[in-house]
Amino acid sequence: MATTFSYEGKFSTRSKQTAVSHPRHAIYDFAVAYPPPEIVPFDGLVEGLRKGLEREGHDLVYYTERNGNEALREFTAQKLLDDRGISTTPDQVFMTAGSGEANYVLIKALSDPGDTVVTEQYVYVGTLNQLNNHGVNAVGSPIDDDGLIPEALDELFTDLTAQGKKPKFLYTIPEHQNPTGSTTPTERRKQIIEICHRHEIPILEDDCYVDLRFDGEAQEAYASLDTTGMVMHVASYSKLLVPGLRLGYFVAPDEVTSRAVGFRSSGTANHFASLAVEGYLTDYLQDHKDDLAESLGPKANAMVASLGENFGGTGARWATPQGGCYTWLTMPEGTPMSDLVDEAFDAGVGYLPGSNFAPNGDGQNCARLCFAYETPEKNRDGIACLAEFLDGKGLMKSAPAD
Amino acid sequence: MATTFSYEGKFSTRSKQTAVSHPRHAIYDFAVAYPPPEIVPFDGLVEGLRKGLEREGHDLVYYTERNGNEALREFTAQKLLDDRGISTTPDQVFMTAGSGEANYVLIKALSDPGDTVVTEQYVYVGTLNQLNNHGVNAVGSPIDDDGLIPEALDELFTDLTAQGKKPKFLYTIPEHQNPTGSTTPTERRKQIIEICHRHEIPILEDDCYVDLRFDGEAQEAYASLDTTGMVMHVASYSKLLVPGLRLGYFVAPDEVTSRAVGFRSSGTANHFASLAVEGYLTDYLQDHKDDLAESLGPKANAMVASLGENFGGTGARWATPQGGCYTWLTMPEGTPMSDLVDEAFDAGVGYLPGSNFAPNGDGQNCARLCFAYETPEKNRDGIACLAEFLDGKGLMKSAPAD
Repeated sequence: MATTFSYEGKFSTRSKQTAVSHPRHAIYDFAVAYPPPEIVPFDGLVEGLRKGLEREGHDLVYYTERNGNEALREFTAQKLLDDRGISTTPDQVFMTAGSGEANYVLIKALSDPGDTVVTEQYVYVGTLNQLNNHGVNAVGSPIDDDGLIPEALDELFTDLTAQGKKPKFLYTIPEHQNPTGSTTPTERRKQIIEICHRHEIPILEDDCYVDLRFDGEAQEAYASLDTTGMVMHVASYSKLLVPGLRLGYFVAPDEVTSRAVGFRSSGTANHFASLAVEGYLTDYLQDHKDDLAESLGPKANAMVASLGENFGGTGARWATPQGGCYTWLTMPEGTPMSDLVDEAFDAGVGYLPGSNFAPNGDGQNCARLCFAYETPEKNRDGIACLAEFLDGKGLMKSAPAD
Repeated sequence: MATTFSYEGKFSTRSKQTAVSHPRHAIYDFAVAYPPPEIVPFDGLVEGLRKGLEREGHDLVYYTERNGNEALREFTAQKLLDDRGISTTPDQVFMTAGSGEANYVLIKALSDPGDTVVTEQYVYVGTLNQLNNHGVNAVGSPIDDDGLIPEALDELFTDLTAQGKKPKFLYTIPEHQNPTGSTTPTERRKQIIEICHRHEIPILEDDCYVDLRFDGEAQEAYASLDTTGMVMHVASYSKLLVPGLRLGYFVAPDEVTSRAVGFRSSGTANHFASLAVEGYLTDYLQDHKDDLAESLGPKANAMVASLGENFGGTGARWATPQGGCYTWLTMPEGTPMSDLVDEAFDAGVGYLPGSNFAPNGDGQNCARLCFAYETPEKNRDGIACLAEFLDGKGLMKSAPAD
């Protein structure tokens, strides 16, 4: 049998070749999407796991109930009440392999190929890819520094509905948005809930960055402001602790959850990781959030300060985030940030171009900058390096301020 | 907002309500699908995790490459070579959330709704559900005590192809099959490979029980007998160690893997669990397999002996497994094992009726009995209890032997 078996004509119609990506890391790596590596509580997680295994290790031989580990769901329901004012029960919490899986199954349960979904003007690229791969038409709604603009959203809903493209749902990251770093104020959220009710369009609220606040006060969650079941609430332990844990969750009405379940490829969320997370956070949630804030604040401040020093007076604008991992740099119209990614990488600075996040390819002059991964010093120096690189290209209208 | 938001008309066409199941546990619980709970190496896994975190914990902040943790893939490639004679590379190993996810994504990559797939006459219910939920027509091929009968398979392929229903692939568990406990001898596998080549039908080999052998010799894997890429090989660490780890893998040609990836809901397989497994098995694979065999052998022997004592001379037949978790009881034609499940449960014995595993509903007179979970004593007593129950129903032609 020297011949090679041919799979030609044997693949399903919906299957697609997916390329293997090998991410590169620049000297100043602002292209990543990572929380601070230096405060991951390895010992605490191992100890949490040991405690959990002592208590209920033998239950690991069961494929336990579909919603995931009960102790972690109890902890999560209490956390949602304490931190977000969301009243739910452990039975309504559904654990997933990261918030990505939660979004994936909800998208599949609520939309068919050809359907329309509304997102922020710039949207998390992972979710955008999920929508695109499912054949869903994502339409971005205008934003400002406070996130979605209610009046523009209302108008967009009306227009799309008139075109026979009534949106199946609104996907939004209202707190420390990825990629723009903005947070939508509570008052706006109330307006948006009224608009969504009027149009009968549910909200998929992705709250995965809410634990990463280092300044100011969290705004009220859509899922606490609405009590009719119109809001599906997604969140994550991967950002709070460490992405490799792959643990997120969602809370939605039973009729939604019971349909979303069927789109999971993976079965019950990992119980091993669940025990570690529950065991650690039960004792150390507030301590860990404090550590995270102490790490993130100086990193964000260093990057924002360096943006001021190096990009002030050039016509560039940037977000001043109160949490999360990202700021968003908007260069003057026509600055080809999308085209310059590789050259900037070679010059030492990694970033993701704004166009990666735009359903319609907008944002060629924008860049998402992750401040969470590098040190404050590298954040400061890397922004100076980026300014120098752009200056060398003749793209900085004034010299950086001294 | 006192009204409740209505999702009527908002769900996708392929979404279905999924009921919440609450499994009950009988006094003698042979309905389960669990390996021995008493030998799960909790301390070893915690220690393995600690070692792994020390070595590469900081990499957990990355969403690492799509195929899963590199150290575990290296270990797995070596294990496939040592244990199964399968020559592969770490890059070709793709880690998944249990073997269930591996089967799920391969099914999706290789079949559309309405397609036909051939399985054993009785097939693992998890895979059968995946095929049914995807709208694929599963057709069982005749088996005997040695698994698939090559001549019957050849005939079935020919018939289905003539009907315009050429099978997209053959799904088989050749080693310690779930549910029947049979193992297909190497010589038969060679015949089946020849048949599949002639019909140009690839093989999805699910080898998830191969590490659970306590008697005799493993037969050669389809994936080692064929070197043309016709065989996709799925296996698991969940059965070897503990299901709650949710770690399996597959090896397939790149063109298959690159398409299967897109059907994952969950992203990269859990790195936390991966570190624990690699850390433990690197030092203790053989020891653990020995422990497993020492546990499983007496359990299987006790159940088989009790079947002989209690069902001998009644016209019942049963498998004498050399590994895995199950034996398969075939009562005389007309014995309504499917209808008696609830009553038998109340009498103390849990089992799964054979009809659960048959694509066409056959097997009403059969039962899958898991010998791996209960103690040898409970296996012996539970079989006696089952005989007593059936005798009380007038379904045992002779009295149990004394």
